[in-house]
Amino acid sequence: MRIYDTIAKKRDGLTLTDEEIEFFVEEFVKGNVTDYQASALLMAIYIRGMDIKETSCLTKAMAHSGDMVDLSKINGIKVDKHSTGGVGDKTTLIVAPIVASFGVPVAKMSGRGLGHSGGTIDKLESIPGFRTALSEEEFINNVNSINFALAGQTGNLVPADKKLYALRDVTATVESVPLIASSVMSKKIAGGADAIVLDVKCGSGAFMKTLGDATTLAKAMVQIGTELNRKTVALITNMNEPLGEYVGNSVEIKEVLTTLKGNGPEDLTTLCVELATHMLILAGKGSEEEIREKVKEKIKNGEALDKFMEFVKAQGGTLDIDGTNLKVASNTIKIKAGHKGYVKAIDTEAIGIATVLMGGGRLKKEDTIDYSVGLKINKKIGDYVDEDTDIAEIYTNKEDNEEIINKIQTAYNYSDELVKKSDIIYNIIK
Amino acid sequence: MRIYDTIAKKRDGLTLTDEEIEFFVEEFVKGNVTDYQASALLMAIYIRGMDIKETSCLTKAMAHSGDMVDLSKINGIKVDKHSTGGVGDKTTLIVAPIVASFGVPVAKMSGRGLGHSGGTIDKLESIPGFRTALSEEEFINNVNSINFALAGQTGNLVPADKKLYALRDVTATVESVPLIASSVMSKKIAGGADAIVLDVKCGSGAFMKTLGDATTLAKAMVQIGTELNRKTVALITNMNEPLGEYVGNSVEIKEVLTTLKGNGPEDLTTLCVELATHMLILAGKGSEEEIREKVKEKIKNGEALDKFMEFVKAQGGTLDIDGTNLKVASNTIKIKAGHKGYVKAIDTEAIGIATVLMGGGRLKKEDTIDYSVGLKINKKIGDYVDEDTDIAEIYTNKEDNEEIINKIQTAYNYSDELVKKSDIIYNIIK
Repeated sequence: MRIYDTIAKKRDGLTLTDEEIEFFVEEFVKGNVTDYQASALLMAIYIRGMDIKETSCLTKAMAHSGDMVDLSKINGIKVDKHSTGGVGDKTTLIVAPIVASFGVPVAKMSGRGLGHSGGTIDKLESIPGFRTALSEEEFINNVNSINFALAGQTGNLVPADKKLYALRDVTATVESVPLIASSVMSKKIAGGADAIVLDVKCGSGAFMKTLGDATTLAKAMVQIGTELNRKTVALITNMNEPLGEYVGNSVEIKEVLTTLKGNGPEDLTTLCVELATHMLILAGKGSEEEIREKVKEKIKNGEALDKFMEFVKAQGGTLDIDGTNLKVASNTIKIKAGHKGYVKAIDTEAIGIATVLMGGGRLKKEDTIDYSVGLKINKKIGDYVDEDTDIAEIYTNKEDNEEIINKIQTAYNYSDELVKKSDIIYNIIK
Repeated sequence: MRIYDTIAKKRDGLTLTDEEIEFFVEEFVKGNVTDYQASALLMAIYIRGMDIKETSCLTKAMAHSGDMVDLSKINGIKVDKHSTGGVGDKTTLIVAPIVASFGVPVAKMSGRGLGHSGGTIDKLESIPGFRTALSEEEFINNVNSINFALAGQTGNLVPADKKLYALRDVTATVESVPLIASSVMSKKIAGGADAIVLDVKCGSGAFMKTLGDATTLAKAMVQIGTELNRKTVALITNMNEPLGEYVGNSVEIKEVLTTLKGNGPEDLTTLCVELATHMLILAGKGSEEEIREKVKEKIKNGEALDKFMEFVKAQGGTLDIDGTNLKVASNTIKIKAGHKGYVKAIDTEAIGIATVLMGGGRLKKEDTIDYSVGLKINKKIGDYVDEDTDIAEIYTNKEDNEEIINKIQTAYNYSDELVKKSDIIYNIIK
């Protein structure tokens, strides 16, 4: 088999065979297919597309390109949850303890934040003493004893994706549905998931800006999951404004605690209830209506919060129930609207970047994080403001915050007419 | 400017600006644009295409990527001639002396053969003592004194093309009209041509197999020439059978002599007369009809032959007027048709490969050539044969010629019905 023929085939819009796709992934990881051949093929895939059978095969080949996490020592159906990334997205830390409190195992691997989008691992590391690097043994033991563990991704998981992503990033081949879908799903498959709930973010703070694009991606990922015998459900959710009220690291952990106590913002609470409900459906815990009521009950009766505190302790973290021991930057600056009217739109990516500029995220992989900085969003889409309304406040350790303040102010867009608040969940793809 | 944005633009089917194309070529040659970025862009160009303005800009940028040959010390309009490559194509060695015999300067740079297609430089090197490596000074002096010199391409001519071609060759991006057209025309522009006559071969022995493809390429090259202020004419010519009767190196030089004496095969003679006529039209030597008659006269009166002999001598070659001092392999094997009927088709690429297998050409750049081997085609399309007719004969130094004989026999295709002989010139694009 020659990679040249595979490139030519996709260039001409033909369908690749399983053997051709497997050959490409294997030989690319080995270095026998060169970067320039891979990038030519990636561009051909970008333009010509891939059908679901090809995309599933690519996903599987990528998943098997490195270590496969073996979760067989964990009893029960392992349901994973994945978010395509947004601003203020702390759902994993609320959803996972809810699900675990049902006795359903949650063996979660998460990533760090990059760009405008935060990462679950970073948020957890704002808790004093919390360890995200667990041995496989400790990871599995924790899941078996308390039903929930969360660790950073290990070294040799899906090397094909790492190598391909680095190439896509510099050859303008990132925004391709089959390539994004196979990248996400290969990591879930290699991570050992039996079933997967996807949170496909859509809007100004998401990778997918339009509902059409988000739906296409969601459908592709659900189809791949089905093709590879992993029950998969995708929720397409609103990322036209930050999720909840807080963006940062320690401030988001505080909001996790608030929400697990039942006092969280409505959008965040609703989304977490729905994600947990769909994870539990896939785990075979009953009918949708029944589960939803039980999920709400687990928040109300404090079991979900207890599970979260148990999880933090098990991974070495020290956290009091109100998060008062978390460091939050003491310099608070309130940001005025400077406008009168209804909030019409929020450039959510800009809000994420404002947090990064304070030091709360990374522009490059090597950047270090100041866990104590962040911001609170007081006004969201549909809210009425006048010139003096504080739309947001920042918690900063910087001396000069002008650029940050300006970024947040200009991220807001106003209308004289009433603006409808938007739903948190747009659609569910099964 | 970022190459990423240029790749993304072409990926999305948009038109690139002059600045974007120049930036790509310059930075690619410098190594600042990586091979994997270039191959992604090449694939996007392959699939999305380029309009004539983009292709002309690419041609110009490539031409200027290295040395530009300065022919300003040569008086008169320098008309170059280029063939896209075929089997038995010795036209340059007939056309150039004809044109030179009119006092029109022919400063020709040629290449070596690769694959099934022969090279003019190789053919000349079958003449004892002939030198194809000339200094710039000698090259120009020869053109000024006898109106004709021919040399191998110098080191740093169009480095962008060399680098791009090597990449296209392994990334399935060769067969793209804008990329082929810019590759050919950039070399002509860098070679110092004022005007260009293109011989676009079409058929089983050519790169372009169909008349449609050949016409598209010819039109693109003529438009590029026009856009870059070089009068350009393209003849689309028949390569469904070898040109003339001989394929090889020394045997082709012998056929050059025969043809310059007025005794050449009809297809070869006609094509050479037409190519010379169009070169002389571009050199401003009169009307088409007048020139064509004069060209025929130059063959009849021996002036073209004299010019060729003068040229060979000027570049160190020893050649008697009948080519009897040229080495031709003495082992002659006649090849029988083994069929009865009219020759319907000849796989001309296979005939070229048969010559290469004898050692008369190169499969890889590093291969050395046996100038003395070759073959003669006795029967061409439309000719009647029976089982015992010798369709061809080979001049070989090999002990085992079975594969070669078989290749030639199976290259022929027969019909019970009369087959029309095809024209040598299909079309002329101005």
